[in-house]
Amino acid sequence: MGERILYELAGAANERRFSPYCWRARLALHHKRLTFDTIAWRVTEKDQIAFSKQDKVPVLVDEDQVISDSWAIAQYLEQTYPEYPTLFGGIASQALAHFVTRWVDLSLMPSIFPMIVADIHDHLHPKDQNYFRQGRERMLGETLETVAADRDQRLPSFRQELDPLRVTLQEQPFLSGEHPLWPDYAVFSAFQWSRCISPFPLIEASDSVYQWRERMLDLFDGMARDCLGYSY
Amino acid sequence: MGERILYELAGAANERRFSPYCWRARLALHHKRLTFDTIAWRVTEKDQIAFSKQDKVPVLVDEDQVISDSWAIAQYLEQTYPEYPTLFGGIASQALAHFVTRWVDLSLMPSIFPMIVADIHDHLHPKDQNYFRQGRERMLGETLETVAADRDQRLPSFRQELDPLRVTLQEQPFLSGEHPLWPDYAVFSAFQWSRCISPFPLIEASDSVYQWRERMLDLFDGMARDCLGYSY
Repeated sequence: MGERILYELAGAANERRFSPYCWRARLALHHKRLTFDTIAWRVTEKDQIAFSKQDKVPVLVDEDQVISDSWAIAQYLEQTYPEYPTLFGGIASQALAHFVTRWVDLSLMPSIFPMIVADIHDHLHPKDQNYFRQGRERMLGETLETVAADRDQRLPSFRQELDPLRVTLQEQPFLSGEHPLWPDYAVFSAFQWSRCISPFPLIEASDSVYQWRERMLDLFDGMARDCLGYSY
Repeated sequence: MGERILYELAGAANERRFSPYCWRARLALHHKRLTFDTIAWRVTEKDQIAFSKQDKVPVLVDEDQVISDSWAIAQYLEQTYPEYPTLFGGIASQALAHFVTRWVDLSLMPSIFPMIVADIHDHLHPKDQNYFRQGRERMLGETLETVAADRDQRLPSFRQELDPLRVTLQEQPFLSGEHPLWPDYAVFSAFQWSRCISPFPLIEASDSVYQWRERMLDLFDGMARDCLGYSY
């Protein structure tokens, strides 16, 4: 019998699993009712995942299969385990799920990133901190602390950016309808990223997005709620 | 035999049909292979659609049924004509279509609006112009011309906002996959709004979004391409 292993990014604490891409893969595995073990991995441990022929997590090892990239993992699971609950719910919704995933990656996460970047740094394993700071400060053109200092001012425009999500979730319990599917996991992963690493509350309890996030935190016996993070 | 009529917003020229919401309804009717006539309507002609018990277009009259609001029209058509091509392609994709529609309404269109607002005004029927100018200038806190003067500077951030769309359309011909469905019409409607009313080109020919728009313009014997507008 083979085993299933998910390599996940961890902070200084082994239990701090904060990568949004790893969260998507983990939730997809739960959705498919597949058992798996996880291995905590740090950014500077490139050699540990060299077998995957690339240098990022998540990496899923499923018996003799090695898959990296969370979107590719989702496709793989849907194709390999068609007898388990569908992650997409059809061809058209799989195509739209692609768009929603890119919206998370290219709109939602870049807006969250400056608000939590200093917190990410502070929770990293010491051996990852310099690597992270140098790369991100080069990208941002400012120190992490300078960027984070503006976060209160960034909040209103970020919350406005959530309007499409907010209005949709006022009329349906999940982005995918009555039940969560991959797009819910993709969007949730951005909020879970923040929740696992930063005490800064991005959304208020009165917000339909917050209430949806609560429903997401309840899934799979509260698995995501019970993970190391901040409980706002 | 009854008849099917779509009330559409028109500019000074009867043939200038530029409302993005009306475009969605029109494309949905075409998608469902339903025949219909259109009636040109102006913003100040509230009494002409009073029978619909609200004051906005599109209004669809389908025999004894009166439906306003483009999203409601889409639901109505899908429910009433299940034997014709589906607009959504399933339950999960209908739920996601809701999100995509709200993204168009609450993110995409508000970004396009300031770039074309002066052009909208200039193409309106003279009897609509004062009404439009007063309402929009109150909302914007500036003259239409001042807002429009910045449009070159607005373009880079607008184009960046298209990234989720751009990346998705680099990998699939339509947002909904191999064939266009409602989400394609909703997103297209924002670009068609601009194309019908403004000479200012929002996207470049090398852009996957532009190439997708070309495919959309080709649908239904080039119906959207042949409408009065600007051919960039």
